[in-house]
Amino acid sequence: MSRLRDEVAARLPDECIQLDPDVLGTYGQDRALFEQPGQADVLVMPRSTEEVVQAVQAAAAAGAAVVPRGAGTGLTGAANAVDGCLQLSLHRMDQILDIDVTNRMARVQPGVINADLKRAVAEHGLFYPPDPASYEMSSIGGNVATNAGGLCCVKYGVTRDYVVGLEVVLASGDVLHTGRSTLKNSAGLDLTGLFVGSEGLLGITTEITVKLVAAPPPPATAVAFFDSLPSVGSTIAETFRQGHDPSLMEIIDRASLEQVEAVYRMGLDTGAACLLLIQTDLTDAEEQIDAIATICRSEGASEVHVAPDPEEGEALIEARRRVHPALERLGKQLLPEDVAVPRERMVDLLQGIEDIATQSGVDVFTVGHAGDGNMHPLLVFDADDEEEVTRAKRAFEDILSLSLSLGGTIAAEHGVGTLKRQYLVDELDPVQLHLQRQLKATLDPENRMNPGKKL
Amino acid sequence: MSRLRDEVAARLPDECIQLDPDVLGTYGQDRALFEQPGQADVLVMPRSTEEVVQAVQAAAAAGAAVVPRGAGTGLTGAANAVDGCLQLSLHRMDQILDIDVTNRMARVQPGVINADLKRAVAEHGLFYPPDPASYEMSSIGGNVATNAGGLCCVKYGVTRDYVVGLEVVLASGDVLHTGRSTLKNSAGLDLTGLFVGSEGLLGITTEITVKLVAAPPPPATAVAFFDSLPSVGSTIAETFRQGHDPSLMEIIDRASLEQVEAVYRMGLDTGAACLLLIQTDLTDAEEQIDAIATICRSEGASEVHVAPDPEEGEALIEARRRVHPALERLGKQLLPEDVAVPRERMVDLLQGIEDIATQSGVDVFTVGHAGDGNMHPLLVFDADDEEEVTRAKRAFEDILSLSLSLGGTIAAEHGVGTLKRQYLVDELDPVQLHLQRQLKATLDPENRMNPGKKL
Repeated sequence: MSRLRDEVAARLPDECIQLDPDVLGTYGQDRALFEQPGQADVLVMPRSTEEVVQAVQAAAAAGAAVVPRGAGTGLTGAANAVDGCLQLSLHRMDQILDIDVTNRMARVQPGVINADLKRAVAEHGLFYPPDPASYEMSSIGGNVATNAGGLCCVKYGVTRDYVVGLEVVLASGDVLHTGRSTLKNSAGLDLTGLFVGSEGLLGITTEITVKLVAAPPPPATAVAFFDSLPSVGSTIAETFRQGHDPSLMEIIDRASLEQVEAVYRMGLDTGAACLLLIQTDLTDAEEQIDAIATICRSEGASEVHVAPDPEEGEALIEARRRVHPALERLGKQLLPEDVAVPRERMVDLLQGIEDIATQSGVDVFTVGHAGDGNMHPLLVFDADDEEEVTRAKRAFEDILSLSLSLGGTIAAEHGVGTLKRQYLVDELDPVQLHLQRQLKATLDPENRMNPGKKL
Repeated sequence: MSRLRDEVAARLPDECIQLDPDVLGTYGQDRALFEQPGQADVLVMPRSTEEVVQAVQAAAAAGAAVVPRGAGTGLTGAANAVDGCLQLSLHRMDQILDIDVTNRMARVQPGVINADLKRAVAEHGLFYPPDPASYEMSSIGGNVATNAGGLCCVKYGVTRDYVVGLEVVLASGDVLHTGRSTLKNSAGLDLTGLFVGSEGLLGITTEITVKLVAAPPPPATAVAFFDSLPSVGSTIAETFRQGHDPSLMEIIDRASLEQVEAVYRMGLDTGAACLLLIQTDLTDAEEQIDAIATICRSEGASEVHVAPDPEEGEALIEARRRVHPALERLGKQLLPEDVAVPRERMVDLLQGIEDIATQSGVDVFTVGHAGDGNMHPLLVFDADDEEEVTRAKRAFEDILSLSLSLGGTIAAEHGVGTLKRQYLVDELDPVQLHLQRQLKATLDPENRMNPGKKL
């Protein structure tokens, strides 16, 4: 028995504790490629805030690190174990505690699955917008930790925009309550935002209050093929300049279109430079989508289809969902990138990614949230071929540099974790980085909360 | 000459420095009642971030406090001088640096007046929503410092929801850049939110990047008189339960209606318990407002008027704007309160305020943002009558306690300053208060940035 195991056993019931190395291994890693997890010493699966407090205090007594884990769908290694740590899986804390229909807020435990919250509030005519691709599997706690985004962010914003209050167990074991149950509050400093996207560095989130919006009307859909990237760029710019508010604006590049068509034979134009998918969910969605379709045509789209009917629209955007499965059939490794640039630089980013693919000889398939300037190039390579792996890693780095050179970010909605930690210094100036580290040290002076991640 | 004046003179040109005691007095106070300002030693009026850096470094060299000031429209004493301080007025830094129509963001200096930003972005079909009552006079920097709200927040949120990046001169003189120019960003910790609403405690904001939204269609308006507070409460609740999204939902209580009618003779029903004003700005505003009017009637409104036409609507909500001028004619002092409760407790708050008015014998006139649960009771009293002043102060405290007892806040959108500093401990639990003070100490270890305010 280790000191940590003793301290945990002294404070928590057996049914919260796992020591089996296989189980520890499973819970000790997220879905990040390349990032080697350490070996946790003990796994704690708390069912209440009080049990989280006990776990954090046990780790403090043993001088051990605490690594929190949501649903394990992360892509950057943020939930990976560090050697000798207490791994804390919040999956059992999965209760929706309150849905306040009048105030349009919900209070949930961190282990609630995003899709379950969406479904529960939909029964009351409400909508919880953040929709990462993992929304059927990922937890709200994990979404908060990474400040998760998704497809609807172009209109609705990201997780940060919906979190209005948190309960957090600090490194000290103290339970912090931040935020508000009122729509306005300026008492004290706003601590909530500091914790959203903090990837477990500042404490363990045990309760989350989110705001909700009224469920929007069903969307109308348009899809447009473009022969050139500049045309799609001017279409996006013009759509926003004319005051439209699309609720979805996704892009699929030529390479991805070819793969989807090769596997699924959907009749896609594989000669096109890209496919742009657009939805609007306003009460006059049909008029709005027609106006956007007109913009597509006047900016040079080679083919435009409009579907006022939501079900027909779903069929039209099916191509987007099939990119990932189509690429998986290649039987190789997929390394998903996550960068974002200001909206008007999106085309430069796409063009630059194509150039990097050509120069590096790495197969790169790009899909992304065109309305946000947030692209997810998927680097595909043979993990057994060392030379291919080296080239893929180099291309991955080149794309990060490209994003920064276009005024963008290295981490849009997947977080930083260990995967991108070394690149953070390229994005944040020394003053900001120093202050962030000072704040981390203020909240966690012994650096025991998810050490070695993000900062 | 003082040490501070020497340090300032050594670093800044004469045209940035004011020593005239009258001028110092004028710039050394905001509009808070009762809060006695101290006497600043020097007033600096910088024109650039670099001049702000020099001013902060001069204060550091002299060991003096720095008190920032926007347009001086604050209501809580946050911009009041402290004895011997360097008062820093940012009114000359009033440039709109960039309006990015495609990305829907604007970058401004802190002295830009809210209304000027609104007008400038409106020329591009865009809308900067936060609209405190002072919007024709108050600055964006001051709005950021207090996390200002306004009338449209029920739909659009508060200043915090629009600030995406800041340039801040820290106590050390270092220039911090926070935030993002992309719609999504999860690189590092999110520092922006920490500064919004921090009332000058953490540094001097020298540049602000805000996000903008597409200009909404013209609003449709409804006004409804109610004979009982419970009826208006159920109307508000039902409006949100049915999924409506009003862009304005204001309330005027009986006492205020009587004063407006006495002065302006608008034909208002002074027998009513209150008047509810509602606007919607969706593309189908007319249908929406009819549906809300139907809710008003079915929940017991005694009289409902609907104006699909925006100009007619403006005339209908004129009563709201006339409350303050009508009360000013009473020739007494007005102490504006600023509390907020969860939306469904709004009626309890209104009823409780009436009870406090009756019990204390203080004249209280309540107007507020009904959709936010944010009420502004105006306490009216004779400042020369010591006994009346004492009763008014007691009623002011009772309303704060009432708000807390209803799960609300003591500071919704006016900030804390010195006026409410002593009550903060009633709202924030010791863990949160301790952490807020730790963060303040991390950023400003010598406690020279607006000391004695807020925390």
